[in-house]
Amino acid sequence: MQKTDTIAQIGESAALLRTIARLNLGVSSIVGPGDDAAVVASPDGRFVVTTDTMIEDHDFRLDWSSAFDLGYKAIATNVSDVAAMGAKPTALTVALAVPSDTTVAWLEDFADGLRAGCEALAPGAAVVGGDLAGAPKVFIAITAHGDLEGRDPVLRSGAKPGDVLAVAGTLGRAAAGLALLQFEDAEPAAAFDELVDVQLRPQPPIAAGVLAAKADATSMLDISDGLAKDAGRIAKASGVTVQIDSKLLQGFDAALEQAAMRIGARERDWVLFGGEDHSLLATFAADAILPREFKVIGRIIEAGDVSVLIDDEALPERGWDSVTG
Amino acid sequence: MQKTDTIAQIGESAALLRTIARLNLGVSSIVGPGDDAAVVASPDGRFVVTTDTMIEDHDFRLDWSSAFDLGYKAIATNVSDVAAMGAKPTALTVALAVPSDTTVAWLEDFADGLRAGCEALAPGAAVVGGDLAGAPKVFIAITAHGDLEGRDPVLRSGAKPGDVLAVAGTLGRAAAGLALLQFEDAEPAAAFDELVDVQLRPQPPIAAGVLAAKADATSMLDISDGLAKDAGRIAKASGVTVQIDSKLLQGFDAALEQAAMRIGARERDWVLFGGEDHSLLATFAADAILPREFKVIGRIIEAGDVSVLIDDEALPERGWDSVTG
Repeated sequence: MQKTDTIAQIGESAALLRTIARLNLGVSSIVGPGDDAAVVASPDGRFVVTTDTMIEDHDFRLDWSSAFDLGYKAIATNVSDVAAMGAKPTALTVALAVPSDTTVAWLEDFADGLRAGCEALAPGAAVVGGDLAGAPKVFIAITAHGDLEGRDPVLRSGAKPGDVLAVAGTLGRAAAGLALLQFEDAEPAAAFDELVDVQLRPQPPIAAGVLAAKADATSMLDISDGLAKDAGRIAKASGVTVQIDSKLLQGFDAALEQAAMRIGARERDWVLFGGEDHSLLATFAADAILPREFKVIGRIIEAGDVSVLIDDEALPERGWDSVTG
Repeated sequence: MQKTDTIAQIGESAALLRTIARLNLGVSSIVGPGDDAAVVASPDGRFVVTTDTMIEDHDFRLDWSSAFDLGYKAIATNVSDVAAMGAKPTALTVALAVPSDTTVAWLEDFADGLRAGCEALAPGAAVVGGDLAGAPKVFIAITAHGDLEGRDPVLRSGAKPGDVLAVAGTLGRAAAGLALLQFEDAEPAAAFDELVDVQLRPQPPIAAGVLAAKADATSMLDISDGLAKDAGRIAKASGVTVQIDSKLLQGFDAALEQAAMRIGARERDWVLFGGEDHSLLATFAADAILPREFKVIGRIIEAGDVSVLIDDEALPERGWDSVTG
């Protein structure tokens, strides 16, 4: 069997075996890949589960993302949803569909990305099962699981007037990376490769999810569609208004200023409306001691006419929609 | 909002809400759809998890399957993998990607199929979360979960020489249904619509999985790729040879004889090599009392030169491969 063999040449079973052989073993996996189903430990007596898709030409381009990048990003975008419930990621399943001329080497690179994503972002978690199929375009569906370790899940609906609003992780970097990749000239993307890296291999602060739960976060979600839109989700679920303090976003702007200037963009737009950083947005009681990963960027007030204010202005809840783009 | 509205017109969030509103509530669901993740009860302290994909033009055709059919089949093909571990299905997540001109009515019909599949095949189980995205073709990825209720999982690897081989459910009906749909003339498909129905909305014997586990089945899997190929999987995982008794397949043949004659096919080929019935194939100790859903079709012998025998002849392990077809 050669690295240049395609999955059409070796078939699903052999291709799956080659892929599975490169995965790490999770601490929660009781029965791993290869049977009808996997068996995963859930000592809490409940488990957290979330699913998400990544589709070629909608969510990624194969000329920008390597197979390794895609595996890594698939882990990052899903364990961030587990973390946003205050849970510790334990196990994932991966359904992958690829054109039949995809090489075994590509699959192995994808598996290496899955493994690296687990090891870097959610140590102890692992891919425990999967499915491989043929399709005209690359399609990746990941389901991620987590354990609540006896804690209540942190929902979107618990924010209360008087709470502070805080974020763990970056804002706008993934959007900046995307804008750089989309820019007509390749040079800026090379100059700001650390932003492109966040787009291709997000680094969400997974451990901060459990820390926020332990610090009694009143609500939390992961920012997948942009600060404005996701803050609006907390506001609506909790029946409150979120008020962001523009001054407290200046640190996030600063990290993007040079890149924005280089391609004629506005860094604040990325911070407010850019998705895919998968940072954690949470609220805490005013007297809570925040984990040091979280930076305060605003507060919760009584529900008003709009869901999200920036200072005293309504903030439009635009951002990414996975159907309409 | 109209039924003829497309998801491009109303966006992901609104379309998801419309879909979710039609789902049933599961008895194991603690936090349902709408947050970053769902929370599901797993009283056993472990959970079973399996994932599978269905891709337009590879696994189904939209001119044969309604959205309802696809939802129903997605449930059937996944809870059968949970049942094959001896577990009781509890919760599923669904990642759905569809062209942006898909109507809300289509999504609602799909959701109705999900609900009907859960209610008919796995009462108490429900879809607890999902994801909706845009894609050039319909792509469905389902992840199903189950609870072992304190029992050991039934793996593929436990068959021992002297065990009997038994099947719960139908053999070859889904393949017959597919052959009827593919036949040049539409009349036979109309005449044998009960076979077409098994192809479009499989009826796997889900409850028989738990019954087999309680009867100390030594190995089990669901027959997704055909009896020959899936019997070979038990043989290889267990280090034995499976010997099928051709006489004991005659009842399965009989149900297909008329349809096979009508389109010039061989019913025994469907029984041996036809996938997608998602029946359960299990082995039991010779003195076990089999649940009445199971019919003996052969036995397990010491590993020989071939994995699967039919009487004293080698049975080729051909069948369905989800990549090469």
